[in-house]
Amino acid sequence: MRLSKLIGPDLKEVLRDDPEQARALLQEIHAEDLADLIGELEPDEAAKLLEFLPADEAAPIFERLEEHEQEELVEIMKAESIAHIASEMAPDDRADLFSALPEAMGDRLLETLEKVDPEAAQEVREIKKWPETSAGHLMTTAFVQVPPDGTVQEAIEAVRTFSEEHNSAVYNVYVVGNGERLLGMASMRDLLLAKADAPLAKVTHDDILSVTPDLDQEEVARRMAKYDLNVMPVIEKEGALLGVITIDDIVDVLTQEQTEDVQKLGAIEPLDVPYFQTSFASFIRKRGGWLLALFLGEFFTQTALRHYDPVFEAIHGAAYYVPLLISAGGNSGSQSSTLIIRGLAVGEIKHTDFMRILVRESMMGVVLGLGLGAVGFVRVLMYPEQGVGFALTVSASLVGIVMTGCTVGSLLPILLKRIGLDPATSSTPFIASLVDVLGIVIFVQAAKIIMAATIAKSALGHP
Amino acid sequence: MRLSKLIGPDLKEVLRDDPEQARALLQEIHAEDLADLIGELEPDEAAKLLEFLPADEAAPIFERLEEHEQEELVEIMKAESIAHIASEMAPDDRADLFSALPEAMGDRLLETLEKVDPEAAQEVREIKKWPETSAGHLMTTAFVQVPPDGTVQEAIEAVRTFSEEHNSAVYNVYVVGNGERLLGMASMRDLLLAKADAPLAKVTHDDILSVTPDLDQEEVARRMAKYDLNVMPVIEKEGALLGVITIDDIVDVLTQEQTEDVQKLGAIEPLDVPYFQTSFASFIRKRGGWLLALFLGEFFTQTALRHYDPVFEAIHGAAYYVPLLISAGGNSGSQSSTLIIRGLAVGEIKHTDFMRILVRESMMGVVLGLGLGAVGFVRVLMYPEQGVGFALTVSASLVGIVMTGCTVGSLLPILLKRIGLDPATSSTPFIASLVDVLGIVIFVQAAKIIMAATIAKSALGHP
Repeated sequence: MRLSKLIGPDLKEVLRDDPEQARALLQEIHAEDLADLIGELEPDEAAKLLEFLPADEAAPIFERLEEHEQEELVEIMKAESIAHIASEMAPDDRADLFSALPEAMGDRLLETLEKVDPEAAQEVREIKKWPETSAGHLMTTAFVQVPPDGTVQEAIEAVRTFSEEHNSAVYNVYVVGNGERLLGMASMRDLLLAKADAPLAKVTHDDILSVTPDLDQEEVARRMAKYDLNVMPVIEKEGALLGVITIDDIVDVLTQEQTEDVQKLGAIEPLDVPYFQTSFASFIRKRGGWLLALFLGEFFTQTALRHYDPVFEAIHGAAYYVPLLISAGGNSGSQSSTLIIRGLAVGEIKHTDFMRILVRESMMGVVLGLGLGAVGFVRVLMYPEQGVGFALTVSASLVGIVMTGCTVGSLLPILLKRIGLDPATSSTPFIASLVDVLGIVIFVQAAKIIMAATIAKSALGHP
Repeated sequence: MRLSKLIGPDLKEVLRDDPEQARALLQEIHAEDLADLIGELEPDEAAKLLEFLPADEAAPIFERLEEHEQEELVEIMKAESIAHIASEMAPDDRADLFSALPEAMGDRLLETLEKVDPEAAQEVREIKKWPETSAGHLMTTAFVQVPPDGTVQEAIEAVRTFSEEHNSAVYNVYVVGNGERLLGMASMRDLLLAKADAPLAKVTHDDILSVTPDLDQEEVARRMAKYDLNVMPVIEKEGALLGVITIDDIVDVLTQEQTEDVQKLGAIEPLDVPYFQTSFASFIRKRGGWLLALFLGEFFTQTALRHYDPVFEAIHGAAYYVPLLISAGGNSGSQSSTLIIRGLAVGEIKHTDFMRILVRESMMGVVLGLGLGAVGFVRVLMYPEQGVGFALTVSASLVGIVMTGCTVGSLLPILLKRIGLDPATSSTPFIASLVDVLGIVIFVQAAKIIMAATIAKSALGHP
């Protein structure tokens, strides 16, 4: 049951009859649930609700809306109202809003924000100048910074002042001096355990893991996960502290990157919005391109089969085994590519592990192929019309095909990574299409060797 | 370049010649990097290094080792040494260690731990009684709890005492009374912003999101991500506070669950350890089962083709189009299943959205099928030996096959979810195998309708 179905109609009534009571009611609900609720309302109703709330109460709701919902609201709400809400948003969420908006709409809103809150407008410009999936874009410019020569008590005071202005938890205090340079760091734990009048320098440490603003967000996520960090400072090449990335954004990055990877693995261009919000036309575009490319690629199977017509004429029923045989290649290749793509994504596998993987996967292909080959051998002999020669051909093809599947499936993602492309592009259907043609060639070559006599007889016109 | 390659040999020398200097050196390196380093050493060297360090320095390294590395070390190190290290580990990491060990080995170690640190042994038992992927298993029993009648200053003192004993950040203080019941919560921010002598009750709030210990870890992760929580309390049905789950564990859960999902999508039983640590035999088991099942399923393609032999005899070359046609079904089905599986995983799609998805995907299948059908029509006519009848047959089949692919691919994950199975089990290769057989049937039926005259002529013996 969606929340809006439960409280939607009642809430609308209360909103109309008794706005003050409505506001009190809304304060009882988590901003996340309110965002869900607003997402289910008609845009003009949602706009009314948000304009009715004070900006500092509307901001935590607005920043949790889906990008396309934000865009709709910016379009119909007064620019002033949105600017006031934006001014109350966390700097990173505010920058996200501006990145999500169409260029012209964002520029207009930024002009209005400039008048309402020039500092916020400046922060938007600072964050927006970095690429959308970079550390710079992910960071918030709101953090606690203190000069190097204070005491522990003064640092705690700085945290208190920050907390009055920002509704977010503080993990660390950053010591900044010498021209914006990050000199050291103290955690809240360090501060709590120290004496209040101790010099801050006594509890800070300077072995700080940090990232540069141009680093890709996936790599930021990996490092923060590896070192169990809740906050990662972002530092310019010259050493100036630009902002910090918090772990809650990393959780979102992980989910979003994973969705993209899974969609690529399924041969779809990653969607920008959830399934039901994606338009029909956009689906056709994002699926149609890959589907057509794979279809054109599969034409080679027909060309190959037609080319080998004499062989299939000679061995009646052989063509009927083609889907069975080539699918074994596609399946084993899909297993291998999945293993390697995920291994590369989580950093277990490096693109330099090329040879190690080649050896391992081709051996695995031989063993798995022998297994399927044995089953295939028995199965063929269950039909009276096929002899041992054909059964052997099927078995030998399976070994070759599964080995090819494992090798192609494992090496292709690594090659893509090496030349700087996303390994997840070598999707399961892509690998299957590649291996299908190779499978046909292997099958026919095996037949030509093992069943040479049968094929020769047929060529002479003796059926 | 791996860290161990850089400092391995030198470190070993220093360790031998000057253990004190080695210890000072090790303190400069992050525990995570030390864990990487130890993972690359021979087990007996690693054991020597860990036994040489005081337990409280060895613990943060040991808890970061891979499960199989921990197991190896437990086997060769003195039980006493391991128990002392375990006693210094965070309660949740300690419980993970015991879950990773083989039953008998874990029981022996627990007995030793009982002597070294009875409280830690008790905590292990408390956490271990919950299923391995549940909230109860993920939680730590280390958190700050205070009685309801104190002051803000007393709560801050409790945080300080906790911080002296535990090397972890504190986000919240939990008010517990009335028999272990969770009565309220105050964040560090709340405490910092309040007056020191204010009663604690003035700053605590009681609208606390919590989970029960039997909830699946994936659902815990989803809720913490949705509500941007850094800590989630775990509460027994009767209201007693058992422990808390912290966000760093959620990041690990997300990564691990995603790896499992991706591997299932690629038709592999999820691996327990990283790629290079997985043994060859274990790979053969985890891949061979699915590969064989899919292979046996694909036998139906051969059976179907053989069954329709008269049709393929009548239309020369028709069999050569089979891989091309059925792969279009597999590809479109794989796109649909990927979209739905991911949508279900992130909660964008509910299993009650059945009809909505059925309508959407079948319409999408028709449009995509018409697109491929048009391309296929032109392609067939490029060959002089095939007529318009066969070109129409190919086009019509493509519409039917792609629509079937989209429908089966989207509905199967939802059906699996409805009957309580993991939707990701309907892997791309699984969908492809299912749709392959259906594709052959559709192709032949289309031929029988559109090319009825040709087939009838052939049956009468007029070639």
